[in-house]
Amino acid sequence: MTTSQATQRSLWLAPDGWSVEIIDQTKLPHEVRIARLRSVEDAVRSIKTMQVRGAPLIGVTAAYGLALALRADASDHALAAADALLRSTRPTAVNLGWALDEVRARVLPLSPSERAAAAYARAAELVEEDVATNRAIGEHGLGLFRSLAGAKPSGEPLQILTHCNAGRLATVALGTATAPVYLARENGLPIHVWVSETRPRNQGAALTAWELGQSGVPLTVIADNAAGHLIQRGMVDVVIVGADRATARGDVANKIGTYLKALAARAHGVPFYVALPASTIDWAIEDGIAEIPIERRDAREITHLIGATGSGRCEEVRLTPAEISARNDAFDVTPAALVTGLITERGVCAASALGLKRLFPESAEA
Amino acid sequence: MTTSQATQRSLWLAPDGWSVEIIDQTKLPHEVRIARLRSVEDAVRSIKTMQVRGAPLIGVTAAYGLALALRADASDHALAAADALLRSTRPTAVNLGWALDEVRARVLPLSPSERAAAAYARAAELVEEDVATNRAIGEHGLGLFRSLAGAKPSGEPLQILTHCNAGRLATVALGTATAPVYLARENGLPIHVWVSETRPRNQGAALTAWELGQSGVPLTVIADNAAGHLIQRGMVDVVIVGADRATARGDVANKIGTYLKALAARAHGVPFYVALPASTIDWAIEDGIAEIPIERRDAREITHLIGATGSGRCEEVRLTPAEISARNDAFDVTPAALVTGLITERGVCAASALGLKRLFPESAEA
Repeated sequence: MTTSQATQRSLWLAPDGWSVEIIDQTKLPHEVRIARLRSVEDAVRSIKTMQVRGAPLIGVTAAYGLALALRADASDHALAAADALLRSTRPTAVNLGWALDEVRARVLPLSPSERAAAAYARAAELVEEDVATNRAIGEHGLGLFRSLAGAKPSGEPLQILTHCNAGRLATVALGTATAPVYLARENGLPIHVWVSETRPRNQGAALTAWELGQSGVPLTVIADNAAGHLIQRGMVDVVIVGADRATARGDVANKIGTYLKALAARAHGVPFYVALPASTIDWAIEDGIAEIPIERRDAREITHLIGATGSGRCEEVRLTPAEISARNDAFDVTPAALVTGLITERGVCAASALGLKRLFPESAEA
Repeated sequence: MTTSQATQRSLWLAPDGWSVEIIDQTKLPHEVRIARLRSVEDAVRSIKTMQVRGAPLIGVTAAYGLALALRADASDHALAAADALLRSTRPTAVNLGWALDEVRARVLPLSPSERAAAAYARAAELVEEDVATNRAIGEHGLGLFRSLAGAKPSGEPLQILTHCNAGRLATVALGTATAPVYLARENGLPIHVWVSETRPRNQGAALTAWELGQSGVPLTVIADNAAGHLIQRGMVDVVIVGADRATARGDVANKIGTYLKALAARAHGVPFYVALPASTIDWAIEDGIAEIPIERRDAREITHLIGATGSGRCEEVRLTPAEISARNDAFDVTPAALVTGLITERGVCAASALGLKRLFPESAEA
């Protein structure tokens, strides 16, 4: 087995040297289609419609969106307008604002003629940083997996439960929660992953199952509803998820349904880890439940669903009675008290203000 | 508003006086199609394929299945064969075996020539008992709803969360968990129901949303994943579900995902009630986790889904990559300690051996 699939990129600069190519994730797993972003509007649409999703990948896409905007018009006014447009695409992931801040800080002191090139350069750095960050997260997570596996009868696979897609498709490569999974596979540690479907958009069943399957990782898709049952029956050794935003004290916003898994893990003494780059931490807030904005998306994501028909064609079908009311909160918040540890590029720490400050002492100045 | 829809039957004797008509629930909510059962094989198929589902309705259907078998052949041998066939259809719901025992006990002492008529008569009694039982459950549950509503600011609807379908479609009429909902509506108590989708077969989104909508009950469909979030944010006043089997000490097997809701309710002090007829209680067992068999159904229920296309045609679509492994446990067990109370036809009791014995003193002899 190789991790070549896992290290393939989800976003890259096109051969023309200025437009940006992405895997259109709304077509997966039924079709691997590449989409091209040629303008800030394309970037905005790709984030809003979830052609790209996942906090780290949203950040990098927004960075390139700003570069595309500056290529067309590098004035202060255009920069501000593009920044505002991109920043408003999705409210929960904090990497979005962080990546935009990074590019802005780089280009603001420059004259308009230098800005586009500088923005592309910073975006390219963010891409490489993301890959390196995820590899570091993977190494730290692999250490945890090894010690958990050590407590099991020899040869039995470590049973890992994950939710949504915090995989290579949520980042540039390797993923956050999946990075230790890919490295475990690469290093011959026996594992099996329970992939929770992740309604309403099925990022687990569609994306995580696809990317783990591509890399030969043994996996089983389950309904979101089954997580409590499997944990209760001792069939899960560790839960690992990503994050869309964490607070300075370690509360974690992640895909809706994460909180239920954290409650079940706690009830049965199963470790619950969150893998995240520092760029996902919002140092300005403490109380995730009170302070993290939770995106509400279109009710149609609940009432309708796109799948592949027997002939392979993608078709949208309605699941509910017509004219029904539905509500679609996209994220929930898991309080730090339920999180066994945060796996970051600098190491593993307690989900607490103290734990985070020890790993990120510079955050005290934020 | 009327409860006329809620009291409409899900199963009835056809005008011919011997065949049995059911609502084919696999077609809902897209099509209201009546299916006719003419043989024990038809009854077996209707239970296995979930044209009928819900513990009480499965029981009544099995009772009529035995009557249909005896109509064709009333010998001891045919009775035993039909009983075994029906009993093996689904392993978790205990009402199935209970209803078969009821009919068998009635017909066994009789000569073959009297058996079919006696079986039809007992099945018809079970139908009427189910309706009366559910009305009694509804009255007791309504009392609970009234006192919970009394603690809310005047005029604000009581926020009720339910899972799967323990509605009229899971019974002959009125439902178990929905009986207090229909009676609240009938009595002008303001309510709103959060209907959790209930993957993989979407009994919430398809069946509960349909039947509550038909009766004008205000409802909102949510992803199963959203229950923890809504409970955490104080948006749920009470959780009420049905059961497929309860033990003598009050452990409860119900649709997969119930346990996660019970954990969330407990974490936030929200009452968690289980509405069930006495026929759902398996007096022979104590420990639900160790002793209740959990049905595992076809993985295809996870990987594929049937919905209505834009033109109204029902089409099956695949959600996952092809050739993926999936696991489909149909039920989970919620331990009695997480259950605030059991709502039975005799009243509300603690989910404990003592609570159940007080309401059902005759059970001590079982």
